[in-house]
Amino acid sequence: MATPTAAYSVRLRVRLPNVPGALGRLSVALGEVGANIVGLHGFEAKGPVLDEDVVVNCSDAAHIETVRETLVALDGVEILDFGDRTFEMHEGGKIHVLATVPIVDRDDLSMAYTPGVARVCTAIATDPVRVHDLTIKKNTVAIVTDGSAVLGLGDIGPEASLPVMEGKALLFKSFADVDAFPVCIDTSGDETTEAKVDAIVDTVVRIAPVYGGINLEDIAAPACFEVEERLRERLDIPVFHDDQHGTAVVTLAALENALKIVGKHMEDLRVVISGAGAAGVAIAKILMAAGVQDIIGCDSRGAVHQGRDDLNAAKRTFAEITNPSGASGALTDVLPGADVFIGVSGPDLLTADDLRKMATDPIVFAMANPDPEIRPEEAEGLVAVMATGRSDYPNQINNVLAFPGIFRGALDAGATTVTEGMEVAAAEAIAAAVDPDELGPECIVPSVFDRRVVELVAAAVAGAAVTDGVTR
Amino acid sequence: MATPTAAYSVRLRVRLPNVPGALGRLSVALGEVGANIVGLHGFEAKGPVLDEDVVVNCSDAAHIETVRETLVALDGVEILDFGDRTFEMHEGGKIHVLATVPIVDRDDLSMAYTPGVARVCTAIATDPVRVHDLTIKKNTVAIVTDGSAVLGLGDIGPEASLPVMEGKALLFKSFADVDAFPVCIDTSGDETTEAKVDAIVDTVVRIAPVYGGINLEDIAAPACFEVEERLRERLDIPVFHDDQHGTAVVTLAALENALKIVGKHMEDLRVVISGAGAAGVAIAKILMAAGVQDIIGCDSRGAVHQGRDDLNAAKRTFAEITNPSGASGALTDVLPGADVFIGVSGPDLLTADDLRKMATDPIVFAMANPDPEIRPEEAEGLVAVMATGRSDYPNQINNVLAFPGIFRGALDAGATTVTEGMEVAAAEAIAAAVDPDELGPECIVPSVFDRRVVELVAAAVAGAAVTDGVTR
Repeated sequence: MATPTAAYSVRLRVRLPNVPGALGRLSVALGEVGANIVGLHGFEAKGPVLDEDVVVNCSDAAHIETVRETLVALDGVEILDFGDRTFEMHEGGKIHVLATVPIVDRDDLSMAYTPGVARVCTAIATDPVRVHDLTIKKNTVAIVTDGSAVLGLGDIGPEASLPVMEGKALLFKSFADVDAFPVCIDTSGDETTEAKVDAIVDTVVRIAPVYGGINLEDIAAPACFEVEERLRERLDIPVFHDDQHGTAVVTLAALENALKIVGKHMEDLRVVISGAGAAGVAIAKILMAAGVQDIIGCDSRGAVHQGRDDLNAAKRTFAEITNPSGASGALTDVLPGADVFIGVSGPDLLTADDLRKMATDPIVFAMANPDPEIRPEEAEGLVAVMATGRSDYPNQINNVLAFPGIFRGALDAGATTVTEGMEVAAAEAIAAAVDPDELGPECIVPSVFDRRVVELVAAAVAGAAVTDGVTR
Repeated sequence: MATPTAAYSVRLRVRLPNVPGALGRLSVALGEVGANIVGLHGFEAKGPVLDEDVVVNCSDAAHIETVRETLVALDGVEILDFGDRTFEMHEGGKIHVLATVPIVDRDDLSMAYTPGVARVCTAIATDPVRVHDLTIKKNTVAIVTDGSAVLGLGDIGPEASLPVMEGKALLFKSFADVDAFPVCIDTSGDETTEAKVDAIVDTVVRIAPVYGGINLEDIAAPACFEVEERLRERLDIPVFHDDQHGTAVVTLAALENALKIVGKHMEDLRVVISGAGAAGVAIAKILMAAGVQDIIGCDSRGAVHQGRDDLNAAKRTFAEITNPSGASGALTDVLPGADVFIGVSGPDLLTADDLRKMATDPIVFAMANPDPEIRPEEAEGLVAVMATGRSDYPNQINNVLAFPGIFRGALDAGATTVTEGMEVAAAEAIAAAVDPDELGPECIVPSVFDRRVVELVAAAVAGAAVTDGVTR
């Protein structure tokens, strides 16, 4: 059974007999069905009974039901209230839109709204660049999706994707004080991928006046490539597909620190990437920008090379810029001798034997979520450094380390785009946020709750925007 | 010179000689140039000098400069700081997007974001109606404009319209706890009105998944009619063009109370409406829904009637439903004998003589902004009840009385549209918010700061939604 997590936690208020050992019996019962008690509070004794709030982590939805049934069956225990904490947290949404200025009298109204606001409108109409100072644009990012590739859930559509986009907005605010708002685009009326791309691009261009940046999110490949490319051409604000570049930035940061541990250098590496989708292509590009020369990408049919005739446009580009030796064959055919494995694909693609055939001190980033290409338990002792996409193992490759600081820096600098230089600078800042004396096989990336990260990343990104000459 | 207002107010910190009468001399100087001191604070004596913060209302931008020059020229006065309060209030925008839940540890992250959020997404994908409970949709309204008819400024475009839309969002939140967000649509690439209408409709339909309601704002006629009509057909959430229906609702409310004063009834009235644009048409429709039978609309060429061949589609509709006697001629030709004049047109169209030719106890709503069709000073003694669109005269017809409560009620009821019944209910609630013992020629509408209004309107609108069978 999976480890109990907060994602499947329940809040319950129970009534127990007010006798010694009552809470102990409850705890034992919960432990026996594999649930973790992670919180106890609200204790209230009422004569012969006592009430208590208990927070219990479970493993999955079925497990929550088992826990409830276990408690119902327990002699002397009464469930007064039982709530799924994740659903309760999402009720009514996770963000709200507040005023930065109070409106308490007519004077406030006549400055914030009519007639005073007309002066501000006129100032922008006269000098359009002032929209960046006199409106929310300077600090506001659109989180754009069509809901076509949401987490591991696939094409669930714009409505069902909204909780993720709200969550992203919440992270933007909590980590970087960026005001972000969900733009979930309905392309259900568009038949072809090309029509969907047109729809997304047109919609974003039309609503762009309000925003200082565009964060593309959970848009399926290959549409995401063209959406990003066309939006970058048409807009004068940063456009950033987080699933591609956010992942790439954190991967590069992690690799930089991993190389310090094994004493290897970018230019000498042989890297195999499993997954030639949005993230895989972006990772290949940023690694090359950082000096890596020998990369082989694999999709489900094996190594991506120029001799294949089953490649879409994005994978053709991938084949052109990677795989200099033209290697072919399955993932496990090209992995032997590789210094680095980077997985952004699916579960359980590698075995311990595959790792044994890699070069000395192999580095393995198995980032498929929730189940990695190989589990850390299996890789133990066979790799020098291991990372995953999960929070319950060391070295989580988490985009939260990148996107808040990247947008903070881009907005602060008045950047008109996001350059490769800004992305590499972000990666270096993330890598540098790990103190040298903390750096080790189980610590190649900083904690997502390390507040210095966003500051370091923002400063590095803003500096790179200036260096690259892309500020307004 | 116009009356000094907060819309043109400045905040200044001055250093004066610390001697008796120094502040008096400053006040006299400001008074002599027609400025109003409305605030004094931050007094700080420092030996031979004293510093003070002064807030001064001016009449217009040129007047602000005059005030500054006056102070610079004043002996012994030093200006330490001088700021335009309206522009300072708008710096960086007037709304922000905050989290409703704190993110302080990994458990928070795993509930609000991955992996927990996937459970919420799946719940919505499985049962789409749950988007109304588990996301911001249930409380979020889009404020949609193309910037083509912003205040009295005309077609200033989406960027320059943003301060107004932010102001509207701020009013939504402050008055009705509705989360509203600006959607400023760039239609600059669309050549024809038809193409612009298509662009606005398509964009709003595509981004609608996030929103529980659509507030159309400052879109020029006749595009606004078709935009609203097509969006109402295509969306299952309320669509409300505030410039039309908000104005109409408050006008009806004001008229209901005015009729109590003069003792007339809706069905007996002869009403002349000056302005056959968005607001005029909506006012005609809601008055007819309330029982008025004899309405003549006028545009700049005079009475709108079926014999005219210069009418656009909206005005043709207007001609069909109004003007039963087929009256023709200029505004001043059709006004004699009218009980009610409603102006949503332009300044100074009426004279005192025109008012003398109206029926006994005439009711005049001269709502052109900022300069009404006739100034209250000119109408004094000639009308039974007078209203304007301005806050510096009694009886301001202000949409703020309507839209917050209308959307609050529609969202609370889970309404799928806004019906005429809901609009009439809103008007009646606004009218009823004026206590009978306060009702009088100078008090036919409640104060915009009367907190009961939004509650009464919301309850009435929600009730009418249920009655009309348009709840989800």
